[in-house]
Amino acid sequence: MHQPDRVVLREVAPRDGLQNEPPVPAADKIRLIDALARTGLSRIEAVSFVHPRAVPQMADAAEVWAAVEKHPGIRYSALAPNRRGVERALDAGFSAVEVVVSASETHNRANIGRGVDESLAELPDICALAKEHLASVEVIIATSFGCPFEGDIAPAQVARIVEAAEAAGAGRVAFGDTTGMGTPRRVTDLLDAVATGLPMLMHFHDTRGTALANLLTALDRGVTEFDASVGGIGGCPFAPGASGNVATEEVVHMLHDMGVDTGVDLDALIAVAELAQEVVGRPLESGVLRAGPRTRLSPKP
Amino acid sequence: MHQPDRVVLREVAPRDGLQNEPPVPAADKIRLIDALARTGLSRIEAVSFVHPRAVPQMADAAEVWAAVEKHPGIRYSALAPNRRGVERALDAGFSAVEVVVSASETHNRANIGRGVDESLAELPDICALAKEHLASVEVIIATSFGCPFEGDIAPAQVARIVEAAEAAGAGRVAFGDTTGMGTPRRVTDLLDAVATGLPMLMHFHDTRGTALANLLTALDRGVTEFDASVGGIGGCPFAPGASGNVATEEVVHMLHDMGVDTGVDLDALIAVAELAQEVVGRPLESGVLRAGPRTRLSPKP
Repeated sequence: MHQPDRVVLREVAPRDGLQNEPPVPAADKIRLIDALARTGLSRIEAVSFVHPRAVPQMADAAEVWAAVEKHPGIRYSALAPNRRGVERALDAGFSAVEVVVSASETHNRANIGRGVDESLAELPDICALAKEHLASVEVIIATSFGCPFEGDIAPAQVARIVEAAEAAGAGRVAFGDTTGMGTPRRVTDLLDAVATGLPMLMHFHDTRGTALANLLTALDRGVTEFDASVGGIGGCPFAPGASGNVATEEVVHMLHDMGVDTGVDLDALIAVAELAQEVVGRPLESGVLRAGPRTRLSPKP
Repeated sequence: MHQPDRVVLREVAPRDGLQNEPPVPAADKIRLIDALARTGLSRIEAVSFVHPRAVPQMADAAEVWAAVEKHPGIRYSALAPNRRGVERALDAGFSAVEVVVSASETHNRANIGRGVDESLAELPDICALAKEHLASVEVIIATSFGCPFEGDIAPAQVARIVEAAEAAGAGRVAFGDTTGMGTPRRVTDLLDAVATGLPMLMHFHDTRGTALANLLTALDRGVTEFDASVGGIGGCPFAPGASGNVATEEVVHMLHDMGVDTGVDLDALIAVAELAQEVVGRPLESGVLRAGPRTRLSPKP
């Protein structure tokens, strides 16, 4: 199997993680983002600009972002569901924005309140606006590996959105395994169908245990950018109690043992996973948080 | 990546799973084994014959085995740590026994109360005894991917035990990731070091999230036999609260979506995972148990 020398991780706990947890105070979000910034991570999805009625967890996005330490080596990003959200992200000073659109019509309507084509129609204008602000746009394609309402998603549906994103002027695409329906086969099928010169990132959930197997498959196919969430925070909205985002420390732990560099200090990251556990106030399911890395030995009996 | 058409799974919840849980009544064990036998599984590790002071959970092994329905298509096995245990297993009528020895000296002493070489010295006699009873012997090599006391285990140490097992007349070998220290790299390194004509099985724990990534790596290298535990029962003895055995339904779920046959009825297996949860009396962590398979959709909003 092919593996790269280096993988780039984007930490999504502050946004995707906390968006799927009960609301936490702005001060805790700031503390979490600043702690993550000191682990060696080079990308952090900090907040989203969405309607506060839809996502009350992110109502304080501008306040959080204003107070966060801005480390020059880190690319901080904000997610938005539409042009209005992108405007707010740019006004707040973000130079990297993510626009989310689902491969599934049903999921896009449930998530964003409109059809896929309506989302796509807005992309050229969003990209032009971002360009004026010298900001980059990534299109995140939710439900890329399956939809909780529609089931399997044809890879061609995903490929169509990639084409639209590229044509609109987006600089990057990301494939979201929104509810953990991805398997190695789905990763392979998707990569077989998608042809783009844009940088590609994959975002896996560990809802059904497949996250690291999917990541390994993607590595073998040349993908080198992944999302992950410290402590695995962010549950699965359709299965109470089930896990969501793959834990960043599980990704780093496996990659480092494989000799793949991430730039992240694993011990520092595990300490932040402990902080994340405090912040969300429930025991997190990350195995590397609970059992420690494989190098943490037990006293000899 | 290479994948086979078919994988053979051995279900280990009744033995390896329950051995790492608080004791449960014999009747529940029998119910669990009989339910597993109706899912399409072709191998079940039913009990172990160990000293009841060392493992009180298995004190009723003979009683359980006597009462279990014996399905003709299923290979039931019993584990033993030494010749005395093998004798008891053969006396109880087992035609497949597993002898465990650790690659780690410290772990073998902690687990079996003697050194690796003492364990290996007994193997020829055990194999001869089994042969008299027309029974097969599998040597399970614990801590094959790392030891919680010693840390990394040199693959050459594992290879030495494989050679000893083959020379002694064992019919099979299994590599145990006893405390979930395996990663894809460790799987590759081990398979690079081991040269044997014996059938090989791998036994992964999901303690640090790597179980299915390890399994995928092993598949790519031609391994087609794996252990798994329904519901993921069996914790990690060195990390309270952390998970142990990979859940059978997570393995089956991923393999089936990849088009790899296991002979197992996934829905029936998930029903047994629910039974296993009842039997151990705590919420199990299997993602496929909690969230359902990827084909179980949510009502459209």
